Amino acid sequence: MVWTLSALAARVDGRLVGVADLPIKTVGTLQHAGADAISFLANSKYRKFLKTTQAGAVIVKAEDVDMISGNAIVVDDPYVAYACIAALLYPPTKIARSGIHPSTVVDSDAEVDPTAAIGPQCYIGANVKIAADVQIGPGCVLEHDVSVGAGSVLVANVTLCRGVKIGERAKIHPGVVIGADGFGIALHQGQWINVPQVGSVQIGSDVDIGANTTIDRGAIEDTIIGNGVKLDNQIQIGHNVTIDEHTVIAGCVGIAGSTHVGKHCAIGGGAGLAGHIEICDGVQFTGMSMVTKSISQPGSYSSGIPVEPTQDWHKSVIRYRQLEKLQARVKALEALLAEKPN
Amino acid sequence: MVWTLSALAARVDGRLVGVADLPIKTVGTLQHAGADAISFLANSKYRKFLKTTQAGAVIVKAEDVDMISGNAIVVDDPYVAYACIAALLYPPTKIARSGIHPSTVVDSDAEVDPTAAIGPQCYIGANVKIAADVQIGPGCVLEHDVSVGAGSVLVANVTLCRGVKIGERAKIHPGVVIGADGFGIALHQGQWINVPQVGSVQIGSDVDIGANTTIDRGAIEDTIIGNGVKLDNQIQIGHNVTIDEHTVIAGCVGIAGSTHVGKHCAIGGGAGLAGHIEICDGVQFTGMSMVTKSISQPGSYSSGIPVEPTQDWHKSVIRYRQLEKLQARVKALEALLAEKPN
Amino acid sequence: MVWTLSALAARVDGRLVGVADLPIKTVGTLQHAGADAISFLANSKYRKFLKTTQAGAVIVKAEDVDMISGNAIVVDDPYVAYACIAALLYPPTKIARSGIHPSTVVDSDAEVDPTAAIGPQCYIGANVKIAADVQIGPGCVLEHDVSVGAGSVLVANVTLCRGVKIGERAKIHPGVVIGADGFGIALHQGQWINVPQVGSVQIGSDVDIGANTTIDRGAIEDTIIGNGVKLDNQIQIGHNVTIDEHTVIAGCVGIAGSTHVGKHCAIGGGAGLAGHIEICDGVQFTGMSMVTKSISQPGSYSSGIPVEPTQDWHKSVIRYRQLEKLQARVKALEALLAEKPN
Repeated sequence: MVWTLSALAARVDGRLVGVADLPIKTVGTLQHAGADAISFLANSKYRKFLKTTQAGAVIVKAEDVDMISGNAIVVDDPYVAYACIAALLYPPTKIARSGIHPSTVVDSDAEVDPTAAIGPQCYIGANVKIAADVQIGPGCVLEHDVSVGAGSVLVANVTLCRGVKIGERAKIHPGVVIGADGFGIALHQGQWINVPQVGSVQIGSDVDIGANTTIDRGAIEDTIIGNGVKLDNQIQIGHNVTIDEHTVIAGCVGIAGSTHVGKHCAIGGGAGLAGHIEICDGVQFTGMSMVTKSISQPGSYSSGIPVEPTQDWHKSVIRYRQLEKLQARVKALEALLAEKPN
Repeated sequence: MVWTLSALAARVDGRLVGVADLPIKTVGTLQHAGADAISFLANSKYRKFLKTTQAGAVIVKAEDVDMISGNAIVVDDPYVAYACIAALLYPPTKIARSGIHPSTVVDSDAEVDPTAAIGPQCYIGANVKIAADVQIGPGCVLEHDVSVGAGSVLVANVTLCRGVKIGERAKIHPGVVIGADGFGIALHQGQWINVPQVGSVQIGSDVDIGANTTIDRGAIEDTIIGNGVKLDNQIQIGHNVTIDEHTVIAGCVGIAGSTHVGKHCAIGGGAGLAGHIEICDGVQFTGMSMVTKSISQPGSYSSGIPVEPTQDWHKSVIRYRQLEKLQARVKALEALLAEKPN
Repeated sequence: MVWTLSALAARVDGRLVGVADLPIKTVGTLQHAGADAISFLANSKYRKFLKTTQAGAVIVKAEDVDMISGNAIVVDDPYVAYACIAALLYPPTKIARSGIHPSTVVDSDAEVDPTAAIGPQCYIGANVKIAADVQIGPGCVLEHDVSVGAGSVLVANVTLCRGVKIGERAKIHPGVVIGADGFGIALHQGQWINVPQVGSVQIGSDVDIGANTTIDRGAIEDTIIGNGVKLDNQIQIGHNVTIDEHTVIAGCVGIAGSTHVGKHCAIGGGAGLAGHIEICDGVQFTGMSMVTKSISQPGSYSSGIPVEPTQDWHKSVIRYRQLEKLQARVKALEALLAEKPN
């Protein structure tokens, strides 16, 4: 798509600086954008590139516009404006053509809206309901009684198990599995038996789910992902977890069963949350956080000790193991000193 | 399914308290169950709901029955009894209809038992053997020489690589990959070359494998998962790992190559086990445990420091880095004090 | 395949000791190899088995050959020689027959080399280019504009999203997803909106990618994996990460967006790398390392404290939390002691 700079500026309520009818065809980084590209400055670390950028135009805050000799769009939040402009320049391509590909198998009592598009090699089970403008890419499996809300996209090789409900405008990436059995087992005479997982999974609207993420079905009631939640890749969400609206979770996070995460939380990559705990609204966890207890105060939480050279680390581990002795030595010193004459 | 309370009590060898012919149609939590549902008390944290539950009946231990005004089934282990009763009320649905779906491709010399059911869009390779009552859901790939034992279920989009052997009554969830090449590489003139992985994978009977879990084939001999092992989602098991009977592993655990895990172990979510180590029978690791050495004593082991507010964590990391200095300061104090007159 | 010992020795430039025309059919471990098998000694831990091995022949260094009573091939690097010999004894089987399986759907303007083999149940999208001798196993999805270089293998159920470019002789295991959207989101009026991910992914030549690993497409520019990189299973690589030549990464590692990893690095299992950092050439991270900052010196780095018995761990965590107090106590002692008379 080609847009004029002025048209783009208008779409993001931005102030145009420079050539109104400059044609913009693409996006680029400040370092590598060309004359037909628009770039942006959102992270001050990259401000140094403003002077030398070859970008046709740059999206900036008012405070940075003077550093630019060329064209600009001035907005309050350059990253959000960039997201909107990139979406205009790169309208999403359809991942499947309208209608149902002949190689796909659709159960006779599934209900597929005529505006939906279902690609090749899929299976759509009994009593599945697919709403308007849904796109389902190749290789997806929807077991019986699944429903997918209007405008949602399943990219490819997605598996939705029986009864899973997806809201509107969800985007679900390849390899995602929703509604597999939760990990419910009971020890009976020395052997583990399975506890039937009779709940399901409800995914809200405007939810994104990254590649190879797994969300288990509930044991009795449903696992619930709220509206606007954004999940990165390879996240594991146990049975009966509930995640409230507009929480974002980075890759490789694991959340054990029955834990509740509030609204507008942000969980860093590789974090692990124990089961049966409560995380209140507005909590951030940094990467690789180990969360074993409920959190009732909003704010940022962290754990873990970053790397050091391996030979130093060997010593650090030893010192950590000697903490008890060190405490005892300090205590002994305190006692000794208390006995000494002044 | 509808059962009478007395019939359910009989099936779990429980003592019936209340209305024998009460119809039970479903299960529910103590908080939300209705009059046609049976609930249970297994975790004392939920005992407070016993008085107010609207459940038609509750499965309890003898010591709790007096707290219930309504109907009950009294057993020694309410969770196990609940698991049995839930399985009666929710008999597993078939994941594929009997026979082989016409969209599935079966190699001419595969042997599929006539009682097996293979759903759409699968591929069954040369010399595969599928035993009685096996169910294979949509999108599964079984490479040549795979065998699947009687009563096993592959839910959907499962990949079994060449020569993998699955025992009886296994349940394998979507996205699982068994028998991909182990990570065997050798450095040759500055480049990594692959070491052929000529072993396979043997999965025992009554094994469950959670969504997107991966189990690599052995380098020379086989990777082996024992009978009754239960694996949650997104577990990674390296080549030549052996896991003995009735061990359970929660989500996101990684076990590096050639490690041996004994019987009746329990590994918490996100734990990591180094390669070439031995874990004896009866070991528990709590979540996110870092296991670098062999363990020869049964019992529970842990590592990791849980989150604290991020600003406190910054200070903690600094203090941890100063442990060497702190030890030196204590040593200096000890020396100084030794010189002081009494 | 059957080879004579002398032929195998010749192929690895090894010195033959013993029976030249001994037929070798298979490989085995020192402990379990039989008379028709060749074994090797690469790890001194296994030297004790040299005397009792039943292997037909053993690949050893010159320094170990005297411990062997039977046949041997003497080389400088037994593991590399073993890798070469195993590849001769076990030539890779084709994962798909030549040509395009009739169940596979190929877009009319895809270009598939006549020597390529594409198995059943695949989807090959518009404008895809598949080079000579490529093998694509069952269930793979290649979206539009993907290209796969000569001799590469996609084992099964692999998903390559739009525009992804794969080099030559790559091996991509089941469940891998390359080119899903990066995790780019911007907060707009209390809701997260998606930032279009308009870059793609470039995978070099001789790259291996383990089962269920995910590599996201770039936000603006491409995510890049260099030649000879070896990736194990369940690795997550964020958008715009670049990994240079001959770096190896073990399972369950997560690398956040825009991080650069140099050449000939080795990253242990379960490690996590923060986004926007630089790791120089020749760095090793041990398993479960937490890497939050750039590294500019080659060498080995580590973090994390291994398990201890759970009751000791509870105390350790408390002591860790008391480090501030302990420092204060030492400081108080130092002050007190400074006041004391000598």
